[in-house]
Amino acid sequence: MSNLLNTTAAATTVVITPEELLRHWQGHRSLTRRVIEAFPENEFFSYSIGGMRPFYEMVIELIDIAGPGIHGIVTNEWSRLPEGDHSVNSFAKTKKEVLHRWDEITAQINSLWPLIPPQRFQEVIKSFEQYEGPAYSSLLYFIDNEIHHRAQGYVYLRSLGIQPPFFWDREF
Amino acid sequence: MSNLLNTTAAATTVVITPEELLRHWQGHRSLTRRVIEAFPENEFFSYSIGGMRPFYEMVIELIDIAGPGIHGIVTNEWSRLPEGDHSVNSFAKTKKEVLHRWDEITAQINSLWPLIPPQRFQEVIKSFEQYEGPAYSSLLYFIDNEIHHRAQGYVYLRSLGIQPPFFWDREF
Repeated sequence: MSNLLNTTAAATTVVITPEELLRHWQGHRSLTRRVIEAFPENEFFSYSIGGMRPFYEMVIELIDIAGPGIHGIVTNEWSRLPEGDHSVNSFAKTKKEVLHRWDEITAQINSLWPLIPPQRFQEVIKSFEQYEGPAYSSLLYFIDNEIHHRAQGYVYLRSLGIQPPFFWDREF
Repeated sequence: MSNLLNTTAAATTVVITPEELLRHWQGHRSLTRRVIEAFPENEFFSYSIGGMRPFYEMVIELIDIAGPGIHGIVTNEWSRLPEGDHSVNSFAKTKKEVLHRWDEITAQINSLWPLIPPQRFQEVIKSFEQYEGPAYSSLLYFIDNEIHHRAQGYVYLRSLGIQPPFFWDREF
């Protein structure tokens, strides 16, 4: 009986709603957009520390994940992530083009998000045909990976003598 | 009627359970622990890029947040975050001491987590007497802030010629 009560309580505990998770993601995307904007044009494409990728290449990865990612979460149709130059997004040659693509994905996420079937978040999926786990863990991975690479962009900016946007500022 | 159905569906959608969020956090903490371990002793305390803090100081911040943070989420009792040398944790003088404190906090989180009142996650709190919002957003902030600073540690390591642990490896 005690087990049953615990199970019921756990099942009805709302940690975060789908709408809140969308807002959380878009708050991070808004901050990442401002980090892209903070880079000088040339350094965005070329600056590197310790043999790591320029911030541009990390951002292309984030775009490659977010767009097909939200589509996959909604439909559960997946294809493999492109590698390196195989990304159609990697043809962007200016920060402006990258930001434009970024904004398209932001709008796409907003319009597709309400179509996520409610049971999907807890359903085990295989995102990008490779990563098996509940869909919520894929979504958190998309967000965490963005925070991770954006923070590397922060170090690039600091090393270039540029003050990055505040980490806690997620207004959009 | 359609609105009522939607509201009911939203209220019962489980995005992530408390247990899953705990596991998610501890997975990140396990990775951060391995990033601390990857630093050479001296560089952990002194290495810096672009005028940023040494990784040690960032880790002390994470410890100052996580310990009192989980206590505050459970009890809703808060005090302000210490600044700089005011942290009792900043007296650690070796990596070993920092890792020991890290492990104590890990155990504390595991033991206190089940005591979080189920309604707390959605309750508006004022964490550290400063940051107002639903408790889930504070918890996500703790995690996001850890990912953010750990990723800066990744750049420090790469710049030192050291291969960091894989970002996706959250086994613990």
